[in-house]
Parts: sequence; structure tokens; C-alpha cells
Amino acid sequence: MADEVKGEDAFLEEIGPIPYKPDAKPNETMVFKHYNPDELVHGKRMEDWLRFSVCYWHTFRGVGADPFGQPTINRSWEDGTNSVENAKQRLRIAFRFMNLLGIKFWTFHDRDIAPEGATLEETNRNLDELTDLALNLQKEYGIKLLWATCNLFSAAKFANGAASNPDAHVVAYAGAQVKKGLEIAKKLGAENFVFWGGREGYHSILNTQISTELRNMANFFKMVVAYKEKIGFTGQLLIEPKPKEPSKHQYDYDAMTVIGFLKTYELDKHFKLNIEPNHTTLAGHGYEHDVVLASEFDMLGSIDANTGSPDLGWDTDQFPMDVKSCTLIMLAVIKKGGLNPGGLNFDAKVRRESTTVRDMFIAHIGAMDTMARGLKGAIKIIQDGYFEDCLKVFQFFKLS
Amino acid sequence: MADEVKGEDAFLEEIGPIPYKPDAKPNETMVFKHYNPDELVHGKRMEDWLRFSVCYWHTFRGVGADPFGQPTINRSWEDGTNSVENAKQRLRIAFRFMNLLGIKFWTFHDRDIAPEGATLEETNRNLDELTDLALNLQKEYGIKLLWATCNLFSAAKFANGAASNPDAHVVAYAGAQVKKGLEIAKKLGAENFVFWGGREGYHSILNTQISTELRNMANFFKMVVAYKEKIGFTGQLLIEPKPKEPSKHQYDYDAMTVIGFLKTYELDKHFKLNIEPNHTTLAGHGYEHDVVLASEFDMLGSIDANTGSPDLGWDTDQFPMDVKSCTLIMLAVIKKGGLNPGGLNFDAKVRRESTTVRDMFIAHIGAMDTMARGLKGAIKIIQDGYFEDCLKVFQFFKLS
Amino acid sequence: MADEVKGEDAFLEEIGPIPYKPDAKPNETMVFKHYNPDELVHGKRMEDWLRFSVCYWHTFRGVGADPFGQPTINRSWEDGTNSVENAKQRLRIAFRFMNLLGIKFWTFHDRDIAPEGATLEETNRNLDELTDLALNLQKEYGIKLLWATCNLFSAAKFANGAASNPDAHVVAYAGAQVKKGLEIAKKLGAENFVFWGGREGYHSILNTQISTELRNMANFFKMVVAYKEKIGFTGQLLIEPKPKEPSKHQYDYDAMTVIGFLKTYELDKHFKLNIEPNHTTLAGHGYEHDVVLASEFDMLGSIDANTGSPDLGWDTDQFPMDVKSCTLIMLAVIKKGGLNPGGLNFDAKVRRESTTVRDMFIAHIGAMDTMARGLKGAIKIIQDGYFEDCLKVFQFFKLS
Amino acid sequence: MADEVKGEDAFLEEIGPIPYKPDAKPNETMVFKHYNPDELVHGKRMEDWLRFSVCYWHTFRGVGADPFGQPTINRSWEDGTNSVENAKQRLRIAFRFMNLLGIKFWTFHDRDIAPEGATLEETNRNLDELTDLALNLQKEYGIKLLWATCNLFSAAKFANGAASNPDAHVVAYAGAQVKKGLEIAKKLGAENFVFWGGREGYHSILNTQISTELRNMANFFKMVVAYKEKIGFTGQLLIEPKPKEPSKHQYDYDAMTVIGFLKTYELDKHFKLNIEPNHTTLAGHGYEHDVVLASEFDMLGSIDANTGSPDLGWDTDQFPMDVKSCTLIMLAVIKKGGLNPGGLNFDAKVRRESTTVRDMFIAHIGAMDTMARGLKGAIKIIQDGYFEDCLKVFQFFKLS
Repeated sequence: MADEVKGEDAFLEEIGPIPYKPDAKPNETMVFKHYNPDELVHGKRMEDWLRFSVCYWHTFRGVGADPFGQPTINRSWEDGTNSVENAKQRLRIAFRFMNLLGIKFWTFHDRDIAPEGATLEETNRNLDELTDLALNLQKEYGIKLLWATCNLFSAAKFANGAASNPDAHVVAYAGAQVKKGLEIAKKLGAENFVFWGGREGYHSILNTQISTELRNMANFFKMVVAYKEKIGFTGQLLIEPKPKEPSKHQYDYDAMTVIGFLKTYELDKHFKLNIEPNHTTLAGHGYEHDVVLASEFDMLGSIDANTGSPDLGWDTDQFPMDVKSCTLIMLAVIKKGGLNPGGLNFDAKVRRESTTVRDMFIAHIGAMDTMARGLKGAIKIIQDGYFEDCLKVFQFFKLS
Repeated sequence: MADEVKGEDAFLEEIGPIPYKPDAKPNETMVFKHYNPDELVHGKRMEDWLRFSVCYWHTFRGVGADPFGQPTINRSWEDGTNSVENAKQRLRIAFRFMNLLGIKFWTFHDRDIAPEGATLEETNRNLDELTDLALNLQKEYGIKLLWATCNLFSAAKFANGAASNPDAHVVAYAGAQVKKGLEIAKKLGAENFVFWGGREGYHSILNTQISTELRNMANFFKMVVAYKEKIGFTGQLLIEPKPKEPSKHQYDYDAMTVIGFLKTYELDKHFKLNIEPNHTTLAGHGYEHDVVLASEFDMLGSIDANTGSPDLGWDTDQFPMDVKSCTLIMLAVIKKGGLNPGGLNFDAKVRRESTTVRDMFIAHIGAMDTMARGLKGAIKIIQDGYFEDCLKVFQFFKLS
Repeated sequence: MADEVKGEDAFLEEIGPIPYKPDAKPNETMVFKHYNPDELVHGKRMEDWLRFSVCYWHTFRGVGADPFGQPTINRSWEDGTNSVENAKQRLRIAFRFMNLLGIKFWTFHDRDIAPEGATLEETNRNLDELTDLALNLQKEYGIKLLWATCNLFSAAKFANGAASNPDAHVVAYAGAQVKKGLEIAKKLGAENFVFWGGREGYHSILNTQISTELRNMANFFKMVVAYKEKIGFTGQLLIEPKPKEPSKHQYDYDAMTVIGFLKTYELDKHFKLNIEPNHTTLAGHGYEHDVVLASEFDMLGSIDANTGSPDLGWDTDQFPMDVKSCTLIMLAVIKKGGLNPGGLNFDAKVRRESTTVRDMFIAHIGAMDTMARGLKGAIKIIQDGYFEDCLKVFQFFKLS
Repeated sequence: MADEVKGEDAFLEEIGPIPYKPDAKPNETMVFKHYNPDELVHGKRMEDWLRFSVCYWHTFRGVGADPFGQPTINRSWEDGTNSVENAKQRLRIAFRFMNLLGIKFWTFHDRDIAPEGATLEETNRNLDELTDLALNLQKEYGIKLLWATCNLFSAAKFANGAASNPDAHVVAYAGAQVKKGLEIAKKLGAENFVFWGGREGYHSILNTQISTELRNMANFFKMVVAYKEKIGFTGQLLIEPKPKEPSKHQYDYDAMTVIGFLKTYELDKHFKLNIEPNHTTLAGHGYEHDVVLASEFDMLGSIDANTGSPDLGWDTDQFPMDVKSCTLIMLAVIKKGGLNPGGLNFDAKVRRESTTVRDMFIAHIGAMDTMARGLKGAIKIIQDGYFEDCLKVFQFFKLS
């Protein structure tokens, strides 16, 4: 691994685009063995079935910390400051990274890309500056924004929730933040906009008024819809279910819970779901359950392509590496005719022991190859027709 | 335990009604130490807050078998046949048992109370005969039917579901069974009617058409509503959520999933929920979650008062013996103004090592005392006002 | 599926041995596509790496019942009696079934193969008669007994345990049963003898004396060792860990727990482990954990090749169908140089919806093919050497 | 809460010792309602049964961060630096805090109390300076060190483990750190010394050599025993089991696993266990299981008195507030004759929404009252004798 001795920046320079090399040897890790973007499969280019996206938070803001450990990862392009300049440098590297991988989409939270200022105004100015750069980089590299989202959970002010916070000042702040978020989403042509309500939930029913909080969340979402329409943002709104963590109970527990919420408050015409299988399994379901279920209700918007370990009870955001699971996911995607305007966003992070830029590449390459194998497997299932035939043994009747 | 040497029937004869004896010694087990039906608490008689119900399936049809073990329990009133006569003898004992405990409600599945005949006609005739007797016994003892339900999961024909079965013959049979079920519910003045869809779900998405099955279930429920109205049955219809077991995934996963289903198919005006905390914890929630959530959505109908062990992943249907959990349940019940026409049905069974009639009593007495302590605890929380005051620190605002 | 119209017996007659046909079409299910017994891989015949075994209890005594459902499966060779004649007929079918699959090992509990009589003497006479037949059938078909075991958990008498039962009469009965079990194991040339302590555990610590019960279990095992040596039975003794179900807590929780128990009571020279991955995952570990761990401690005896669903909290005993999991298992097996005298016992059952003899075949064929793919995958990992090379980056040092 | 307006330091000044006031009103939170240190119960002062300890890491180093959130807690005694001076100021506050609560023991990791320097030498000098102060404070307040431990998991160098790390330099560093740790433990008269191996485990078996790593850990512990004896440190060595988190699998999974490990490497004479119930439940056991099991094997050293939520799959380190659970723990403690030299260490943290010093008090007071109720409940169980009598129904026999 002599190449690691150089700065990671130099390393990026050298490797060039990741090639498709199906006959690569086992120890050749910087090649695709299965993913071949231009290959026509089941009527579409592979790239169009697999709308991969790099997530900015894990891949460019992750430092390898965990609840029991300090950071382990230090990138050469980080200067240790939280400056706008450093943010720009990081963003440029990110686009080069995506370009080398041949990934055409990215995703971010507002707070990932630009430093938070002393005031909301300063924060928003920083966002303006960084999104100006992002717009240029998107054009330069032909990369699109799959979705943007607002971080309404990290700051201390959101400890008791954002839209469901009992303090009106916090709700107002969250509203201002989402307003700006929708504006930059529009500016960057985001194809979707995601809400993940990590702190919208409860720790104890003894200090919570659930129906009030849910109604407040619903009204917040109605304002989102109104503002989206006002500014003419045309991206699809998405809610991302998660059952728990950091909250003991999150209101957006799983796909069906969110569908029930949306139906109750007549929001189901305006929102679809962004399903993350690692969240699905934390809710006690099988890996593919929420993707399939959301699809059957015509509510599947996009997928956070990752995985957990079935024996672990928290969100590990691993890169998907299990062909069988990815086959089931892609089967649902194919049956739906593809995910557009959704995609397969790698909401996944390298383990904290994997500290090199090379590891960042290997992780994405492995996941892309695995999803490509899942795609091919799903197509084989469909073309073989075996399971389809099994379903015909009984004529499925319909009661009305 | 000399009394056990006699027949259990004789034992029943002797013990007389279970008295309230708050100063009983630790080894006095055949007395209530906390439950005092006529005591006025928080504006109602304790009995009216705690509408206890005995379930017929576990308490009178349970034999102590489990997936790894043969029956351990043999009651003196069982003659080893599946005759109508034996069924009547059993029913008479059941009413005497409830009477001795001072429990005023019971629940059953159609197949619990009357033997299944060679044909549906014969089965229905048996049901007629047994419900004639039940009607008399209800009057004789002043005991009411909290709810009836149909067993649409045990028979081999229901292996692939009842309302969601792909075979129209099975659906038709289920329909006929529910038709009769509603008729006997009306005859016996049932205050509610429950649906538990143990086999309505899937084992693998590869051989399942989820949206078709859900639509069929919804249409089945619409026929139920129509027939209920046709015959003038006025009981409340209830759906009982359970996430899994026996199915890998049950469509009625949890409270919010059922609410989403009912809203989707415009059935939410006609159904409420029967929440079983053991099912709630199997769905990954805290013990009280579904009771509270259903109540907040004004969808709480009735409660199956039982518990599991948090470290076990299957339905153990234990009698509720944890005061803290029962306090949280009763807190929700009190806030709702009581459960009427619902109740607290002991969907619970003695462990298979507890083989005597005395154990049947002790289990119910312990659970009734625990619920009574939960009731008193909940009232104390409300009267102390401490948590209520905490909630006032922030003025809960409403966005609209 | 016209062949199903005939008796299943006739069906057996017709199908003939399952062939290896790697180019079979997707809908050809009665062929091996990967398992080719005579193929030489990594220095051994595939059959010698994969010492498959059919379990008698699920495959020939399972009826499709579950805690919520009645039997669904009725084999043509069952006459509805519990006679010795029927038991013999069943046993003959079983050997023909194994022969058609090309499986060379079987396993059973004492109570699976012969009907229980009115007395222990009669039960033992039945066992003698059936094991006489089994001995002949083993010779006729060239099939060996991978292991025998005693059912010390189903009978009502074992409700509170066998070796750890507080009632000396029950312990004595268990001792007599194991004595006979060891004798028939010797008679049939069993290569191993398994203990699974389903009822050796507790439901509540309030009525349990754990250290007394564990010491009693240990002493029971010491008597087993003594009797084994006395009669010259040379099979390997195995303990099968399981964390819970039917007990709330089983003393043989997982591999490491059993190793700790065996070390504590100086039994570790006499016992190894029979690992069932479905039990491993119920204990909260990854699928391969206990196989690997037992192997690392040189305590791996045999494997019950099955799987659960990670989202289900009870023992589902599914046939292993996940190539990745089976690869990890076979990797451990290859590193150990094979399992002999252990094997891969399919402690697995068809789902209760799969009621035909054809399903019995398909289930075993699918599992055998999956294990064969796992074997090939593991060999590829070893021959590629990639992971091995990764481990060399750091020179693993040893502190002493 | 006018008192919160002042600096927290001033607040500490004002409140004075927490009194025992059994008749306090519901909204009086700064009093003990059940814990009465000098009350004689079951032959000992309550304080001697309940050897409470404050943990330094959560209570004085916790800032309310979680994997999805930034710090929420800012204490008035923190000056924002990592200076030795600030560390001393913090330590003085801690002793005043413990003194006001009437808690007589504390626990810490080496890295909690003193800032890490640029070199190990500087770090150790800082430790010397802080432990000089701690020694004085211990004397001044009459507070003892229940146990010390080394943090061998937070620093980046420990990402792949400490004693089981494949890099000899890391093992050597860990050795140097533990050497110093034992020295300061001796200096401060620690009654115990704890090892928690958060990073001693694996993420994937593909890159792990389990038996080598376990042997290295065992040899590391042997060096610990040797050095302990060399310097004449007389505290009890303890290992704290945890199944997972941060590792996917930790070698010290649960009590029985550690006992198996200690027996295997003949370390069981030198170590006992420090059981944390939140870890026990994460391992799939009932709350009290590992405390009871360790006690039955005479391996119970000390208890980290905390709790998780049964529906959450990660370590939440909540203060114990469930009387029933604490009763079961105290029952085991009483049967053992008390915990001395162990104790009940509150390895627990306030939720990040609870940001005031008042909350620090309330949390400890609530937990101390709960444990006191548990103690009284356990004594009642013993004095009633009901369960003891139940156990006598069968004469527990012993096989040898």
C-alpha cells in the first residue's frame, strides 16, 4: 500500500476512473467486477436501474467517532478548521471522488456542506456560498442532487424535537431552516427532499402529549407543502421512517406507520417514503419488508442502500454487501419500473478501523458490485418466471 | 395442599367466593389483597374501572402443550371426548369459576366453546346448543360477553390465511364462519367482536401479492360491517394487532399499522383496536406503547391484559404481574374515562408446570390484584399532579 | 403436479435417485444443480466434506402443527395409529427417501422411532424391535447413524427438567432412558450422541436453585461418561446449546456457556458441541458465531445445518438456503479439516403449507445445493488467499 | 426553579445534604423518601447493604452528546479547556456532590480524571497530580474508591482492541497504561479494579483470529495478576461482561462466557465479575440473570446499578428506577451476605434533555430510593419465607 504514503489528494489524482473488469483477480479491489453502467439489462442501461448516490455526511464528514471512541479518520484535505474555505476544498474533493467512481448523484444535509455561523443569517450566507460552488461542480461533473435534507436533530436546541418540540421558538427555527433548505434544494435541482425526524418521538409517555405532537408535525408538513408550491420546487417530498435511536420511540416508526400518519392528516398525496433497510430491520421486519410494502402502497420514493447486522440493535449504516438481500430490493424496484426520481443512496460509512481513502473507494465499489449482482439476480428471477408461475397455481381472485 | 387430593370439581365447591382481605398473610393466596370491587376510586367503583374478563381458550381449553412438550394439564371435568356434553359440562364449570372470582365478563373463539362437526351445519348446530346454554349461564351468574371472535387460524384450511387466502373456497368458508360468529355474538349480547388475523400475512415476499391480499382483507371487513348492520349487531368491531407468530409477518403488525390500514380502506369509522401488550412488545415497542397510541388516536377499544418477558421473542401470554407496567396502562385508561364497552381480558395462561385448579385461581387473583395496584398508582399520579405540572413548564402550543 | 394424485408411496417409487444436473432449467426442482457427491474439491470428495444427515423428527414425525394451528400434513404411509407396525413402515420409507436423496446419515430421538409403551419395559421392547429393523436398513442402504439422542423434554414428567429436575424420580427415569439410549446408539454404531436440555433451565429465579441444578446436571453427565465407557460405546458425546425456548433461560445458552459449564465440572475432555445456527442467532450472535467459536476452542463436534429468520424470536428450523451464511460455516469446517465424526444434520422442517412429499425432497435438495455452494465459496476464499493475506499485514504476535 | 439562575456552583452551596423525609410531598424531589442510611434492616445498616458509588465518567464528564447529537450539557465549573486546573476544579465539585448525596464511594477511568498529555509521561504526571488531590479529597470527605479502571477503548490507537490488538505496540501501550492504573488504584486504596474490554472482540470473523486474540488477552491478564502481586495491590480484580457495542461481538459476552474464559486460562482464582444489568439485557437475558448467575458461581464481585429499556438495542445507562428489578438484584445480594468489597456503582447518566445540576441530584436520589425499596422488598421476600417454602415441596436432592 505504498500509495497511501502520499497525501490522499495525490492518491485521488493517480487512480483515475474505476474501470469495469469482470475478470479481475481477487486482490484487485479498485475495479468493478459486476457493475457495468452502460450494459443493457432488462430494457435499460444498468446505470439507469441503479441510480447510485454518495451521501455527504458519512463519506465526507465522518471521522470514525462512536459513543465509546474518539475520531480515527483524518483526511488530508481537512485543515482542522471549520472554515468556509475548508468546506469548499472538501466539496471539490467529493465531486472528484464521485466522478472517479462514476456515481451520478449525491445527497446532503444542510449542515454537512456549510459551516454553521453565529447567526442564522451567517449560516444561510455560508450555505449560499457553498451551494454556488455545488451548482458549478454539479455542472462540471454531470452529477445531480438526488436529495437534500435539513439536519433538525444534532443541534442542542433540537434535543426535544423540531416540528414536535413543545417550545415554539424551536419550531420557528426549524421552520426557517426548512424554508432555506427547500430554497437550496430548488437552486440545485434536487430531485427529492427528505425529512428524517430523529428527535420527533418520545422517551417516556409520562412527559409527552403524543396526539398534540403528531398534529403539530402534520401542520409543519402542510407548511412545507405550501412553501414548496409557492417557490415552485418540483422535487418529491419524502419521509424516512426509523423506529428508534436516538429517540426511544420515533413517530415515523416504519413504512406503514408513516403511511398511517400521512393518511390521517391527508398528506399522502404530497409525500412518499425514503426507505432505509437498516431502519427496517431495527423495526423488527425482514430486510426487504419496508421497500416492498411502500412499493405495494405506491409510496416508495427512494432507498437508502445500506444494511445493519441482524444481531445488532443500533444503526450501523454498513455498505450493502449481501447479494441475496439486494436481489430482493432490486426485485421490488424492477417491478415498480425503476426508482426515478428516487435512487439508491449509500447512507453508509466505512468502519472506523478503515481509515484510508482507498477504503472509501473499496466500500463504494463493493456495494455497487453487490447491487449490480442483485439487479442481475432479480432480472433472472423475473425472466425465469418460476415464482410467477407458482403464484398462478391459485388464481388470485379479488373480492371486488 | 390437601384439597388437591379431591376432584377439582369438589375443590371448586369448597372454596367459595374469593374475599377481599387486605391484611392477609403472605402465604394466603386465595384472597384479594388489593382488588376490592365496590371500593370507590376516582369517581367510580373499582370494578367499573377494571372490567376484567376471563378468556375461555387458555383457561378452559389449555392443556399445557408447547412446541416441545405434550399436555401436562388434565381437568377433572374433561372426559377425554370432544362431545357436546363435555363442552356443556366445561362451560358450566367456567361460569362457576368466574363467579367465584367475581369476574363479570368472558371472551371466546367460536371453536373454543363447541366441538367442530363433520360439516359446517353440524358445527353451527353445536354452536347453537352451546350458546343456548351460555345465554342461560350468563343470566344465572350475571356475567356478560365482553367479546366473541372466530378462530380463522387453527384449522388446516387456514394455513395460507382466511380473508387473505388466495383460494376463494377458503375465503368463502371464513365468511360463513364469521357470519355465524356475528349471529352468536348478537345472541349473547357481545359488547365487542374481535378479529385477529394470525395467518393474514406472509412468510416470503416471493410468493405473496401483498396489495391484493390487503385489499381482499379490506373487502372482507366491509362485508362484516354490512352484515353486522343487517342483523343489527351493535357491538364494537375490534382488530387485534400482532407483528408476527405464527406468520413471519402479520399485516396487523401494530396499532399504527392497523390504523394506516383502516384509514387506507376507509374502515376507520367502523373498527377500533383490541391491544395486547405482549404483542406490543413483540413489535419492538415499550409495554404501554400501543395502548397509549391507540388511545391518542381515539382508536382504543379493549385490552388483552397480559404480558410477555422482554427477553423472549414469542407470545407467552403471561398474567400481568408488574405493577409499574399496569400503572401505565391504567393511566391511559383513566385519561380516556374508562374502557367501556371494552375491558381487561386476561388473554393469559398458567405455565404448563402449574397444573392445578388452585393455580388457575392464583393466577387470576394475582393479575387482578396487580391491575388494582396499577389503577391506584395511576390515580395517585393523576391526583399528585406532578407530571401534569411538568408538562406545563412549556406551554404546549398548537400550530393551527 | 400430476404425480401428486397418486399415493406418496407410489410417488417415491417413481422418482428414482436425484441426479446431478448442473444445467437444469429453473423449474426443474428434482435435481441437484450444485451438489455432486463424487466431485473432488480441495482434496476430498464433496460428499466427504458435506456429511449430510436427515433428521427423523421433523422429516418423518412432523405434522405441520404449530402453537396456533392444527396438523396440515398427512403422509400416505401413516395409518393413524401409534403402532409398532406403522413405525416400521415409516422407517422403511425414511430409508428409501434418504437413499433417493443420496444422504448417508440419519439422526433420531429415541421417542421418534418407536412408540412409547405403557411401561418403560414395553417402550424399550419397542425400541429394540425398531432398532433391529434400523440396523438392517442401515446395512441395506449403506446409511449410518450420525447421532442418536434421548427426548427428555416432551413428556409431561419432564416439565421441570430431566437431569436438573428437583424430583428424584424424574431424574431416575431420565437416567434409565439415557442408559437405553446409549445402548441403542452403540447397537446402531452411532458416531455421536447428543444432549439437548430443552427443559434444563428456569422460568423464574424465585423458584430455582441454579447451582444445585447445574451440579446435578454435571453429575448426570458424569454417569453418562461412566456408562458409555462401561458398555464400550465409542461415539462422541455432544451437547447442543440453545438459549431459550421452551425454557425462559436454558442452562446451555450458547457455545461459550457450555464450554464454561464443561470446564467448571471437568467434563470438557468428554464432550464436544453440536451447534445449531438457529439457536446461535436466538442467543443474539451472528449466524456463524458459535460454529466458529466452538471450533477455535477445539470443541466443535457437529452441526445442525438449519437457519432461522433474523426477525423472528423463536426456533423456526428452516432449511439453510443462504449461500453467504453457509460459506462462513463451511469455511470453519474446512479450516478444521472436516467434521468427521460430525456432520451436517438437517434439523429443519418444511413449512406447514408445504404438505407434499415432493416438498420434502425439494427442501433437502435446496439445502444440499446451498451447502455445496457454500463449500465451493469457502474453498474459493481459501484458494484466493485474499483474507489470509490481509491478516498478514500485522504479524500476529503471541504474548507467550 | 429560580435557583437555577445562579451558577451551579452556588446552587451546590445552598442545597446542603439531602435529608431523609419519608413523608415528603410528591413534588419534593430533593429528599430521600426511602433511603435512610443508618436504618438497621436485616442485621445491617442500610448504607452497608447499599454501597452506592458515583461514576465519574457519566456524571462529571458527560456532555449530553449522542451519535446523532451535539453536547447539550455545560457545567458552570467547566472553563472549556482541558487543563489540569479545570480537572482539579471538577474533582473538587464531584466530592462535594457525593458528600451532599451521602454517597461514600466513587469510580473512574484513568482518562476521566486527568487530561491526556502529549506523551505517556506527561499523561502520567497529570494522573499523579490529580490522584494526589483525590487522595486528599477522599480523606476530607470520608469517601472511598470502589474501583478504578483504565480506558483502553476510546483512543484511536485502540480501534482494533487493546490486549487483543494484533499490533504489539498497542498492546505494549495498553500494558503501560494498566501498570500505571494499578499503581494509582493502590495509591487511592481502590477496593476493586475493573476491566471492560469494549474493543476486545470482532466485527467479522474473516479478519480475526479468535483463539490467538483470546490467548493474548489471557496472557495480558496474567501479567496484571503478576504486577498486582508485585506492588502489593490488594483490591479485587473484576471483569465486566458486555455482549456487543462498540464491537459487533465482544469476547466478554456475558457472565457465563467470562467464567468459561477464566476457567479455560486458569484465571478464575484471580478475577470476579462486575455485572451491569444493562449489559445483561443486551445479551438477551432477563435483568437479574447475570447477577444471579455470577453469584451462584461465587463470582459476583460488584454491580453497575443501572438499566436499559427492553425495547432498545444499545446501552442507554439509565438510572435504575424499577422497584421490581432492583428487588431481584438485592435478593441475590442479601443471599450472598452483601457485596463488600463490591458495591452498587451508578454507571448511569442523565438524559441529554436533563441539563441542570438539579437533575444530577434527582437522578441519583431516585435511583437510591429505588434500590432502597428493592432492598426492603427483598428482605420482605426472605422474611415472609413464602418462596423458600415453595422450594421445600420437593426435597432438592443432590446426586453426589
